[in-house]
This record gives sequence, structure tokens and C-alpha cells, in this order.
Amino acid sequence: MKALIIAAGRGSRLKDFTDNEPKPLAQLLGLSLIERVVLTAREAGITEFVIVTGYLSEKIKTKLGNGEKYSVKINYIENKEWKKGNGISVLQGKDLINEKFVLLMTDHIFEADTLKRLLKTKLSDKECILVVDKTPKKHIDLNDATKVKIENNKIVDIGKGIKDYNGIDCGMFLCNQSLFNALKESIKKGDETLSGGIRILSKKGEMRYFDIKENFWIDIDTKKDFREAEKILCKRLTKLTDGPVSRFLNRPISIKISKLLVKTKLTPNSISFFSFALCLLSSYFFSLGSYLYVVIGGLLSQSASIIDGCDGEVARLKFQQTEYGAWFDAVLDRYADALIILGMTYGLWRLHGNAAVWIIGFIALAGSFMNSYTATKYDSIFKKSGKKPKVRLGRDIRLLLIMIGALSNQIFYTLIILGIITNAETIRRLYTLRKT
Amino acid sequence: MKALIIAAGRGSRLKDFTDNEPKPLAQLLGLSLIERVVLTAREAGITEFVIVTGYLSEKIKTKLGNGEKYSVKINYIENKEWKKGNGISVLQGKDLINEKFVLLMTDHIFEADTLKRLLKTKLSDKECILVVDKTPKKHIDLNDATKVKIENNKIVDIGKGIKDYNGIDCGMFLCNQSLFNALKESIKKGDETLSGGIRILSKKGEMRYFDIKENFWIDIDTKKDFREAEKILCKRLTKLTDGPVSRFLNRPISIKISKLLVKTKLTPNSISFFSFALCLLSSYFFSLGSYLYVVIGGLLSQSASIIDGCDGEVARLKFQQTEYGAWFDAVLDRYADALIILGMTYGLWRLHGNAAVWIIGFIALAGSFMNSYTATKYDSIFKKSGKKPKVRLGRDIRLLLIMIGALSNQIFYTLIILGIITNAETIRRLYTLRKT
Repeated sequence: MKALIIAAGRGSRLKDFTDNEPKPLAQLLGLSLIERVVLTAREAGITEFVIVTGYLSEKIKTKLGNGEKYSVKINYIENKEWKKGNGISVLQGKDLINEKFVLLMTDHIFEADTLKRLLKTKLSDKECILVVDKTPKKHIDLNDATKVKIENNKIVDIGKGIKDYNGIDCGMFLCNQSLFNALKESIKKGDETLSGGIRILSKKGEMRYFDIKENFWIDIDTKKDFREAEKILCKRLTKLTDGPVSRFLNRPISIKISKLLVKTKLTPNSISFFSFALCLLSSYFFSLGSYLYVVIGGLLSQSASIIDGCDGEVARLKFQQTEYGAWFDAVLDRYADALIILGMTYGLWRLHGNAAVWIIGFIALAGSFMNSYTATKYDSIFKKSGKKPKVRLGRDIRLLLIMIGALSNQIFYTLIILGIITNAETIRRLYTLRKT
Repeated sequence: MKALIIAAGRGSRLKDFTDNEPKPLAQLLGLSLIERVVLTAREAGITEFVIVTGYLSEKIKTKLGNGEKYSVKINYIENKEWKKGNGISVLQGKDLINEKFVLLMTDHIFEADTLKRLLKTKLSDKECILVVDKTPKKHIDLNDATKVKIENNKIVDIGKGIKDYNGIDCGMFLCNQSLFNALKESIKKGDETLSGGIRILSKKGEMRYFDIKENFWIDIDTKKDFREAEKILCKRLTKLTDGPVSRFLNRPISIKISKLLVKTKLTPNSISFFSFALCLLSSYFFSLGSYLYVVIGGLLSQSASIIDGCDGEVARLKFQQTEYGAWFDAVLDRYADALIILGMTYGLWRLHGNAAVWIIGFIALAGSFMNSYTATKYDSIFKKSGKKPKVRLGRDIRLLLIMIGALSNQIFYTLIILGIITNAETIRRLYTLRKT
């Protein structure tokens, strides 16, 4: 299925920016609005796009090209009359689209999940569907929103000014060719807006609605909307599987860093590697043994733990997630864990010269590895069951322990504690899962 | 769907055994024939069984009970006239089965995959299907086999004595109620065999065939057949993913041991644990450091490597495979690996007192863990692609290396080699998979 994206208007409420740039190229967390819409749709499975440009058309075409760099196909239509209503822009799509299609707005940010669900909805030949928010969150500006009135699954009225409404237009549609005919009719009558066309379909009883439910969406028109969207997109980076250390300490910091990193060209894999390099350095400082160096080692390992969250965050914010990236990160993390424990053990041995230190280091290393080795299985089973395991001894906790141990100059006991808790946790997992 | 299993006859060609025991209880690799048929069918998804007993009926009922211990439901019908043709036994099923059903013989061993494929075959209301082997392997006794003549997907003739045939009856059927009517007709005419009923369906054009293709099956009537079945079932234990050490050294020995183990009540998990205990012992001997002990350590670790194959083999032979079992084994193996490397390192350090030994041990341990950690991903990708990776540095190779190092009293170099090849292999995997 193709997606028709409307990117013709100027965005007068972002005047400072749009004097020289088209609104679709305004940046939101490392991606322009139009890139974000294209990539979200790609995540939902759409690979062919028709983009209607207007204001500063060439700049958009130069930026996106034929879509190759996003692994999609993009065609453009220019709407010379972009100053008129957006219904005229939509109507331009008529010649390039002759089947069912998705209609999206450049300035409406949404979740791929919403589009996935929408694409699964059955659509008869004479129907169009509009995605509607029946319980809009507080970030939606109701004064400016297009409202709809729903009765028995159908949209019966639409408009910014209607008083009797029970839902908000989310700017996403699943459409048939009938939309183009309705737009022609509406334009002929003097209403050049998309809402005008929708209103004509509503009157005929051919406009269904689709409930967005709890999924996130936002219409971006003002600077405040940008800040709001940033805030929400970042908040969504916290994972359900995040343990307390990650949730309350690492994630808040790593998200702040990721907000800066998305603006650079750094890839998630290079961030993973940087975090690994910090661990290598940490290992070196630990191996020197004396307190000052150990403190540096501890601070470095905790920094690495924080940065270790950024690769995934940047990947998610910029749609750069890959299976290989996740795996690459995991493999580097295991080597980093090994290096840090080796550094701690060696540093301790330099001070004390006692072989018991090495045995304790071995046990801590084995336990740390076993934590990672068993986690996949453990997490996948609890994921399937929908439950969240109460405790999850993860890397975030181990590295925080190491920093605390370093700051308090208790590397020996830190290794002992690590050895005990990691191996105990592994045995606990073996035991817990025995009935599965 | 229910399965009707015929277990009424005496099996006169196994006279020594069947003087006191019914043939269905004859043991094949730790399971009686009837258990093997029930469990193979369960693997294919069948959970309800009707078993027709006859000769020494009570012994079979006592053995299998209501099926609870196999997590299936078993009902019995006794055929007092079991000395007559087997068609009469099949006909007994009429009262307990009133839908499509699978018909199986106790003495026909087959692969779950064959039954799975058969169950997916569509069957019209007036048809029965017989599984047929068009290219019988050399273990099939053609003199004694029931032959069939196939024409255009239909069976047109059946019998032990027919001269013009192009397939062998594998003793597995997918049936409708029409089979019972055909049997009645055949018995009335004086032919009490199942083949008699099938012949009547054939004449009516209501008997289709199903090609068993390359899948294994065997009709077990003589002691020679038992030996043949044992040989083939054991040969099938070798896995596609087995590396050369496993294939040519460990597997041939472990299969011999498993043949004995299946006759005991040892569970696969207890075998996994025994292999782990051998590694613990191996680690202890390695840690003593002097040559004689190191040799014992090396022999023990290689023995553990061999026994480590038995848990899976016994599980597969006795239908005791579980996801948890595979995971339990994997976790114990990782600890065993860690213990052996720790033992080797400690033993070496006792002799030389050089801290470099510990660093080398750490590197070998990390590499060994990383081999296991990355293998899942690596193997799964190559499994998906259907290709077999050319080299697979697995545990079998590591433990063989350790034994060779122990016998040649070169633990130091063994650790260095382990450290190099395991980490090199991990980096190779990281590199190979980067484009996936």
C-alpha cells in the first residue's frame, strides 16, 4: 500500500523557521518532521510514498531524494496552489494513486503501532477511515484541533468549529478513491479543505472512524508542540524491562545525552563502541591498584554504564534499530564486563599478592557472564507471560556496585559480593524456571 | 483427532518373548513398542488414543494405564477374537470413534514428522488414506511386506502376494467411518484382514495414498528387525550441527552409552548433572598441578564431553526432551567450562607462581564464554539460511584440546591457544554477521 503525505503548507505559526525552510524539514530529535513520518510508516510496513510538496518544494526533494537512503520509494507531486486549502494538495495525489492508500500529514507525529493496526482494518470499496482520539491527552491543543462527531462507528460531522463533538481528528486516514471525488465536489462548492471532503463523505455515511486508543500522537504547529513532542518521545525510551538503577539513575542521564547525540552523525554502533572504550580505560585504571586510580576506574565504568543506554535510545529515536546492533552491543558489553573484573582483580593482586584474589575474580567473572547468559531465556519467558520479573540483576546494578565499591575503596569485598549475588541470581533463575 | 492403535496380536515370530509377554511391550531402546507409537503420535499432536488389545490384554493395560503418565488419554477395547484376522481388531474401534481418525499398528515404528504431514492432508468424507513407501530402504523385508498398486493417486490393489506393485504399505492410515463398513463387507465375504477392507475401498476408488518419501519407518516382526530399528534410531541421533569432534569421536561413544542409559530410569537432567560432576572432579585434579593429576583431569573433562551428549540422546530416544532440560544443560556446561579453566589456571599457578598465568586464564575463560554466548545467535542465523557453517568452534573441540594439552603436559600453551582461538572465533562471528 502507498502512503500519500501532505507536505505543501508553510507552517505560518513557525514563522522564524519557515521564512527560509519548509516546515517538513524542521528538526525533531535528530530527524526532520517528514523523515520521521516516512520512517514511522516504514516501520509499519509501508515502502512507497507520494509526497505533495508546495512551499520551498525543492528543498524537500533535495533532502529526501528518491527515498533510496531510507530504503523506500518516494515520488513527488508539486502543488502550485499550496497557499489554498489542503484539500487541493490531497487531490494532487489522484494521478499517482489508483488503489487504497494511507493519507498522512507531515506535521502529525504518530506511533508505528497505530498505523500497523490501521492497515489491518478491513475497508470496503466505498469507505474511508479517519483515525480519531476520543480521550485526547493534555498536550493536544483543543482550540486548534479538528473535531469530529461520531455516531455508531461513523463520522457524521467534522470541523474546527463544531460544538458538538466526541473525538479529535488525528490526521491519519485509510482511503479509497472516493475521497478524491468527494474533494472535487467540496472544492466545487467552495470549500478547499480536506475536512470539506471528509464532511461530504460523512453526509453519505461513507466515513468510518478508527480509535487511536492510548497510542501517542501530536500535531506539531508551534515551538511549544516541538518541546512537548520531544518530551514525550524521550519519555517513551524508558523500557518496561528497565530495573531500578536504570530507571532512576542511568536512564534520566542517558536520555539527556541522547538528545544531544541524535543531532550528530554518530551511529548507535559507534556509541556502543565508545562505551566499550570507556570500560577498557576503566579496566586500565582499576589495574593500577591505588585508590585514586580505582576511583577513576569506578567513575569510568559507571559512565560507560550510562552511555551504554544511549546506543539503543539513539537507534530508536532515529529509526536505526537493527538486530545486529543489539547483538554487537551485547557482545561488547560482555567483553567490557570481563575487562573491568580483570582490571579490578589485577589491581587488587598487585596490592596484596594473594592468589585468592584471582579465584574470587574468576568467580565474579563467571557469575557476571552467567547473569547475561541466562537473562535472555529468563526475560523471554517472563515477557511471554506478560509479567515483569520482580528483581532483575542486570548490568546496570553490577556496574553501580562496582562504582560504589571503587569510591569506598573496597574492591576486594566488591568482587566477593559480585561473585555471590551474580551466581546466586543464576541459580535462582535455574530454580524459578524449572517448571516452565 | 483420535488414534486407533492395533495391539491385539501375539507376534508369533518373536515366540521366545511373547510366550509370557504381549509383543506391544517388547522393549526398543528403553521404551516398549506401544509406548513408542503413543509418544511418537503425541509428538505429532495426538492426545487421545483407543487401543485394541487381545493377547495378554491385562498386561498392556497395566503398563499404559489411562495414559496420564504420558499426558494423553487412553481407552481400551478388548478383541476376544484376536487370533483371527486383524480386520476384526480394527472393527472393534467402531463404537469408540465417530469421526476421522488415525489408524496405527503397534509394531510399525515411524517418525512424528510423517504423521504431522499426514494430519495436514485434507480428507473428503468418503476417502481413506494409506501411507505408502515407494522406494523402500533395504531394511524392509519385501517378502513379508504388504504391497500396494498405485494408479493416479489411488490405491487399486493391496496384498502380501500381489505381483504387480509399486509401493509398500507402511501401516499408517488416515481414515473415515467408511473403513468400518468396508471391513464388515470384507469379513462377511470371509476375509478377516485389514487388507481385505482396504481392498474393498480400493475397488470403489475410495483409497488414496500418501507418500512417506525419505522418512524412516520399519515393521518390527523379528529380532533382526529390532536390531535394525535400534541401529537406525541411534544413527539419527547425530545432529546436523555436530562438528567433526562430536561427529567422529564423541557421538559414536556417547550413543553406545546412551543405548545402555535408556534402559535405566536416569533422567536426561540427571545425566547433565553427572557430566557436570565429572567436570568438577576434572577441575579438582587440574588444580593439583602435577602431571599425573593433570592427565586424570584431562581424561575426566573429555569423558564429561562425551557424557554431555548422552542427556540429549536419551531425551530424544525416550521422548523426554524439554526446553528447560536443554537450558539446564547449557547453564551447567558453562559453569563446568569455567571450573575446568579455573582448575587448569590454579594448577599452573601453583607450579609457576606467575601472575601472567591468571591473566591468560581470564582471557581463556572470557573467550570460552563468548563462544557459547555468541553461538546461539550465530547458529540461529545459519539455521534460518539452511546453510551449515563451515567451522563451528564448539565445546567438543575446546574440551578435546584440553585433554590433548593435559596428556602432553602443556597446560600453559593450552590456555594460550584456548584464549586465542575462542576470542578469534568470537570476533570472526561478530564480523561475519555484521551484514545480517
